[in-house]
Amino acid sequence: MLEKEPFHQTLQALHQQAPLVHNITNYVVMNNTANALLAVGASPVMAHAIEEVEDLVAIASALVINMGTLSPHWVTAMARAMKKAQELGKPVVFDPVGVGASPYRTETALRLVYDYRPAVVRGNASEILALAQKSQDTKGVDSTTGSENALEAAQALSRQLHNTIVISGATDYIVTDASVDTVTSGSPMMARVTGMGCTATSIIGACLGVEPNAHRAAHHAMALMGQAGDWAAQRADGPGSFQMHFIDGLYQTTAPQ
Amino acid sequence: MLEKEPFHQTLQALHQQAPLVHNITNYVVMNNTANALLAVGASPVMAHAIEEVEDLVAIASALVINMGTLSPHWVTAMARAMKKAQELGKPVVFDPVGVGASPYRTETALRLVYDYRPAVVRGNASEILALAQKSQDTKGVDSTTGSENALEAAQALSRQLHNTIVISGATDYIVTDASVDTVTSGSPMMARVTGMGCTATSIIGACLGVEPNAHRAAHHAMALMGQAGDWAAQRADGPGSFQMHFIDGLYQTTAPQ
Amino acid sequence: MLEKEPFHQTLQALHQQAPLVHNITNYVVMNNTANALLAVGASPVMAHAIEEVEDLVAIASALVINMGTLSPHWVTAMARAMKKAQELGKPVVFDPVGVGASPYRTETALRLVYDYRPAVVRGNASEILALAQKSQDTKGVDSTTGSENALEAAQALSRQLHNTIVISGATDYIVTDASVDTVTSGSPMMARVTGMGCTATSIIGACLGVEPNAHRAAHHAMALMGQAGDWAAQRADGPGSFQMHFIDGLYQTTAPQ
Repeated sequence: MLEKEPFHQTLQALHQQAPLVHNITNYVVMNNTANALLAVGASPVMAHAIEEVEDLVAIASALVINMGTLSPHWVTAMARAMKKAQELGKPVVFDPVGVGASPYRTETALRLVYDYRPAVVRGNASEILALAQKSQDTKGVDSTTGSENALEAAQALSRQLHNTIVISGATDYIVTDASVDTVTSGSPMMARVTGMGCTATSIIGACLGVEPNAHRAAHHAMALMGQAGDWAAQRADGPGSFQMHFIDGLYQTTAPQ
Repeated sequence: MLEKEPFHQTLQALHQQAPLVHNITNYVVMNNTANALLAVGASPVMAHAIEEVEDLVAIASALVINMGTLSPHWVTAMARAMKKAQELGKPVVFDPVGVGASPYRTETALRLVYDYRPAVVRGNASEILALAQKSQDTKGVDSTTGSENALEAAQALSRQLHNTIVISGATDYIVTDASVDTVTSGSPMMARVTGMGCTATSIIGACLGVEPNAHRAAHHAMALMGQAGDWAAQRADGPGSFQMHFIDGLYQTTAPQ
Repeated sequence: MLEKEPFHQTLQALHQQAPLVHNITNYVVMNNTANALLAVGASPVMAHAIEEVEDLVAIASALVINMGTLSPHWVTAMARAMKKAQELGKPVVFDPVGVGASPYRTETALRLVYDYRPAVVRGNASEILALAQKSQDTKGVDSTTGSENALEAAQALSRQLHNTIVISGATDYIVTDASVDTVTSGSPMMARVTGMGCTATSIIGACLGVEPNAHRAAHHAMALMGQAGDWAAQRADGPGSFQMHFIDGLYQTTAPQ
């Protein structure tokens, strides 16, 4: 259950501390996720060159790794950044976009997750099932099953990785060992806008930058996503206007009055 | 002439079948084209790594190749994906962005088109003229001439490639051998929004995923673009709001009531 | 001080001449800056392949170099394009995104600026201080200090490079040797939208394409940014709608009635 006081403290901390969030993410969503991070008060940096990722991890409050449009050079940079974050004790959130859709995606996701143990992994139900190797049925990057069907897989994965797993969907599940929280706000329109999952992952990164408890940071991030989704759903005529109102919703929900 | 019944069947099939459309496209438009595909009910996947493009073609219903921000690694991936699609009989639409603006673009476009014979090629008038080697006068990526001036070139190209050529502009021409269809809906504002042509190409990809007749799929896609353009033109104050309303228009035109 | 007549001449020239602006820029902002250029009447081309950048510089009216998501191949392409522009006497504007945040960024920015002497350099206060080597305190890509604190550094840099330096912020400074102009219009919301600085840099590129005096082109570009910012601020509910209205504002401010 969402406790209001700690939730509001996280939202306040975002604007007060403006955590620097280093993103190595996919081409499709870079603009949206940078805007989402700015809207909640964080300071995004997008940088993927092997020559500098370690330097940026060193000054960042959190690291977001998203393998959406992966390729070998980028995966090398992701691994270096995650290793550096591990050494420096910086929190990492990992988004295994489309894991299961190709052997290359599956191998990459498994290697990054098991080698560097990110504090949080967020995916849709198909992705969490594929990552837990319970299914090879990922169809591209959209989920083909309800989030509730991946709950058991998420719990198994969380026990193995000693971390927090988030399954996003109509109901979001935030899973840590035996503990499970849910978020049911948001809108079906979110599935018709590209990169909503990636945005959730980035917002988890921002919350990890101000809230050391990873389960709580992930829970607060998903609650914030849900509130912005509700804001946008009340105003949108379709996915185009939804995407715009959603960023406004993130801002309206978090900005100091 | 647009026959209403088959057109509505295509629109219905998009939402019912949610075809997986694999895009190897340019950085500028990835977000827009993914959103356009989601808005019409398709499921987009953007992936360009040589390590996985063949696996994704194998699970996709159609392949969209757009050379907007081309570079050697990406061109290799495009060629592999097109070859795989040819082997598996999957439909391909090709967008020769800026062909004629540099020798590298011209050579790449000609090679991909003649080696892999995509079912549909869509470009603006300058691009179709350059691809048919009737002109070297492409100025960047925007057309410098009316679509009607490329009609003869498109017919010659269609005869050579045994495929469908689409010239988009104030009037869109859908050209297959002797047969020509036109679409005149849409708005001049579309020329002031980046990637509208690329979006048309992606929507052709989605329609190819549900309608096996390539000429008809291309025609339906351009008619859908025109309707969404009309929707947006009635609501926009400029190209920023046009871009947003256009995505809503794609959704409103296709979503089941 | 902004002289109205030359300013309106620049705005008119943008739509009349539709200058081709070649951009080698970062992944995050490509869509926005292409749309911003189209909104003011320019014709953007985004192309970074080493195989073609020189050919595109040759047909372009101005070159925009932005190192936001730099990596070695891209830096090589930037250097070649800048060299070609220098040889052909084409104007170049350079955006040292995040200079100071990593040694790789600092070295790259200094090398490009001192080797190829762009007509205009635009950055936020932190970036201009880092480029003038007055500070190593860049925190990612957002400024940590007011634009007025970088004025002296900008003047020193301008004397060294014999060019125009623009510091953007609540007050924008356009600095050439002893001469300084300021622009105070715009909105604090601009700091909550990603790529507003990058957009300013692109608009400077468009103005350089029609106005040979670099100081004046930069001044007119920043005044145009300010007017579009005012337009958007009157209509926005948050950074999402601000980004959209801003593009409309660029169009409304410049489009022939």
